[in-house]
Amino acid sequence: MTSAEQAILVINAGSSSIKFQLFDGEHSLLRGQVDGLGTKPHLSVHDDAGTTLADSALPADDAACHETALGAIVAFLSTATPDIAVRAVGHRVVHGGPDHADPVLIDETLQQALARLEPLAPLHQPHNLAGIRAAQKAFPGTPQIACFDTAFHRGHPRVIDTFALPSAFYDEGVRRYGFHGLSYEFVAGRLCEIAPDVGRGRVIIAHLGNGASMCALRDGKSVSTSMGFSALDGLPMGTRSGQIDPGVLLYLMQERGMDGDEIADLLYHRSGLLGLSGVSSDMRTLEASPDPAARLAIEHFALRIRRETGALAAILGGLDALVFTGGIGEHSARVRSLACADMGWLGIALDADANAAQETRLSPAEAKVAVYRIETDEERMIARQARRLVDA
Amino acid sequence: MTSAEQAILVINAGSSSIKFQLFDGEHSLLRGQVDGLGTKPHLSVHDDAGTTLADSALPADDAACHETALGAIVAFLSTATPDIAVRAVGHRVVHGGPDHADPVLIDETLQQALARLEPLAPLHQPHNLAGIRAAQKAFPGTPQIACFDTAFHRGHPRVIDTFALPSAFYDEGVRRYGFHGLSYEFVAGRLCEIAPDVGRGRVIIAHLGNGASMCALRDGKSVSTSMGFSALDGLPMGTRSGQIDPGVLLYLMQERGMDGDEIADLLYHRSGLLGLSGVSSDMRTLEASPDPAARLAIEHFALRIRRETGALAAILGGLDALVFTGGIGEHSARVRSLACADMGWLGIALDADANAAQETRLSPAEAKVAVYRIETDEERMIARQARRLVDA
Repeated sequence: MTSAEQAILVINAGSSSIKFQLFDGEHSLLRGQVDGLGTKPHLSVHDDAGTTLADSALPADDAACHETALGAIVAFLSTATPDIAVRAVGHRVVHGGPDHADPVLIDETLQQALARLEPLAPLHQPHNLAGIRAAQKAFPGTPQIACFDTAFHRGHPRVIDTFALPSAFYDEGVRRYGFHGLSYEFVAGRLCEIAPDVGRGRVIIAHLGNGASMCALRDGKSVSTSMGFSALDGLPMGTRSGQIDPGVLLYLMQERGMDGDEIADLLYHRSGLLGLSGVSSDMRTLEASPDPAARLAIEHFALRIRRETGALAAILGGLDALVFTGGIGEHSARVRSLACADMGWLGIALDADANAAQETRLSPAEAKVAVYRIETDEERMIARQARRLVDA
Repeated sequence: MTSAEQAILVINAGSSSIKFQLFDGEHSLLRGQVDGLGTKPHLSVHDDAGTTLADSALPADDAACHETALGAIVAFLSTATPDIAVRAVGHRVVHGGPDHADPVLIDETLQQALARLEPLAPLHQPHNLAGIRAAQKAFPGTPQIACFDTAFHRGHPRVIDTFALPSAFYDEGVRRYGFHGLSYEFVAGRLCEIAPDVGRGRVIIAHLGNGASMCALRDGKSVSTSMGFSALDGLPMGTRSGQIDPGVLLYLMQERGMDGDEIADLLYHRSGLLGLSGVSSDMRTLEASPDPAARLAIEHFALRIRRETGALAAILGGLDALVFTGGIGEHSARVRSLACADMGWLGIALDADANAAQETRLSPAEAKVAVYRIETDEERMIARQARRLVDA
C-alpha cells in the first residue's frame, strides 16, 4: 500500500463523543465514533461501503474519557489497518479566534491560545482541546493540525464583523466570527467544480443541519454570514433559538429571574424547531407530524431562511446562486421548496421535479439564480487542509 | 372660535419629560414640553409659527412629577387659550400588548391591563401610565384615549410574530410586537396621498430617528417589522445595540458577571452609534466628525439598513417603494445615500440631486423602486386617532 503514508486521521471531539475518519488521499478508508463518553462508551466503525468493522462497548472510565476513547481508536486502527501509518491528525476546532484564517500545526503555544478562547465557545472548545490532548498521547510524534470552523470567515471587514457595541468589546473579542466554515469551504469548492462561472459569482450557501447558518460568498470567499459571536445567532436550529431580540433575554433575567445557565439551557437546548413544535428537533419527524405546531416550526424555519437570503443578497449586491447543504438542506425537498417560495423577485425558482428527485441542480435552465443541492463533507475538508499543511 | 370643541390635546409622557401638542382639527395650535421632571422641571411652549409662548422654570416637586407637569400644562392652556375646550386627550402608549389593534378609550379596566404590560416595556410603559393618571386629574371628565405604538402591527400571523422559543413563552406574551406604529401609519397615509398606486403596493418604511426600525407594508398594512418584543431589536440606534447575538448576552452574564441592569444599561444607553463611534449618538455630530470610528458607525448603521431592506423585501416578495422618515431619515442625505448604495439589484436608485436637496421623491423617474423622503408626525396621528374615536 504505497499511499499509506498519505493517511490522514480526522478527529471531531465533542462533549460526549469523538467522531473519526481515516482518509487515504481523497479516499475515505473508514469512519467511526466513540459515543457515550463519560457514561457508556461505545465504539462503532464502518468502511466506505457501509460494512461494520467494529461495534462494541468500551470499559467505562470517567476519569479520562477523551483519552480512553482515543486509546480505543488507536487500538482498533492498529488491528484493522496495520499497514497504514497515520501521517497527520486533523482536528476540528470550533473557534480559532480573530487571528486564524488558515489551519495550523498544533504546538504548546497554540494550545494555550486556543484554551484562552474557551469562554467564546464554552460548549465546544474545551472538548475540541481535550481531543487534541488525547490524540497527542495516542499518536506521539505525529503532526496534529487544527482546522477551524471560524477560519473561512476571517476576511470580513470591521463594518461587517462588529456589533453595535462600544469598541472595547470588539477589542476583547466580542465580534462576529461566523461558523460552519469547513462546510462552506467544501461546498464552495464543489460548486466551482459543478458550475465554475456561478461559483465565482455572488453565492449564498444555506448550511441547514441540526446547527444551521447561511453564508454569502463572492469569488468563493465568505463576505458575510448569519452566525455571529456564538453558534446561537442567525437561523433557528434543531434546539437553538437563533437570533432573538436581546430584550427577551433581559426580560428572562429581570422579570423571570432566570440566570445565565438557565437561559443558555433554554436557548441552546429547548428552543428552535423543538421549542416551536413541542414535537421534535428532527425535521424528518416534523415533516411526518400532523401537528399544526410542527407545521408552524417548519414554516417559521423557512421564513427565517428567506429573510436571511434577502439580507445576504443585500450584502452581495444581488445573487447568482443559492446552494442548500447539511442534513436538512440536502434531504428536505419541502424545506427547500418553502425556502424558495415567493422568491421570484430575486430570480429564485425551483424545478419541482428536480427538487423532489433530490438532484444537484434544482432550478430551471432559464432561471436567473441557479439553485443547487450539494452534499457537504466537513471531515474531507479537514483531511484536505491537514494534508496541504503537511505537504507544504 | 367655532372649531374649539374639536381641540385634541396630545400627551407623550416619558421618564423625565411630558411633551404635548394641541390640535384644532388638522391644525396644530401649539406644542410644548415639560422636561427635567424630578430634577429641574421646565415648561416651554411654541405656537405653530415657532413663536415662544412660554419658557419658564417650574417649582421642583419630586413627589408628583407627572402630576405637577400636567398641572402646569393645564394652567398654561387656561391662560393662553382660554376659549379652547379640550375635547379629548390622546396619549401615546408604547405597549398595547397582543390584543389592541386600535386606539381605545381609557377606563379603569384598561389602565389595569396596560399596567400588567409594564414588564414588557419597563422603560416606557410606567411613564406613559403616569401621564394618563396625571391627565385624568388635570382634565376630569374629558375622554382620555390610548394610542399604541404596537397597534399598527397587530395583524401579523404567528409565523411572523413568534420567536423560535417554546410556545409557552408566546402564550405569556414573549412575541414580536413591533413599535413606531404611529409613525408608520402616518407615513403610509402620506405616501398614499403622494403616490396612491405605490402606496398600495409593497412598501418598506425606514423610521430612522434616535430610535430606529423598519416596517414592511402591503396595501398600507404592516406585514413585518424589524423591532420585536422590545425596543432593542432590529437596527442599531443612537445608543441602542439593536439585534445582537444572544450568545453575547450569555457571555456578558457568564464570563463577565454582568447582571440584568448592567446589560440593559449597556445595550440601551451605551451602544449603537454612540458605542461604535465613541463620539456621539447624534448623526449630525457623527457626520461632522473626522474620526474614523464615527465613519464606521455611520457605515455600520447603513449596512444594517441595507440588510434589513433585503430581509423585508423577502417577506414582501419584492419591493415597489422605500420611504425614509424620522429625524435621520428625513435629514441625512448621506445615510440615505449609503442605505441605497449597491441596492440596484433590488431596483433601488437615488437621484443624487434630489437626495441632496431633501426633496420628497428621491428616485429617478425610471427607477423600478420609488424612493421617498416623508416627514413623520406621530402627534398628529395620535390627534387623528383620538378624534376619530370621540367622533365615532
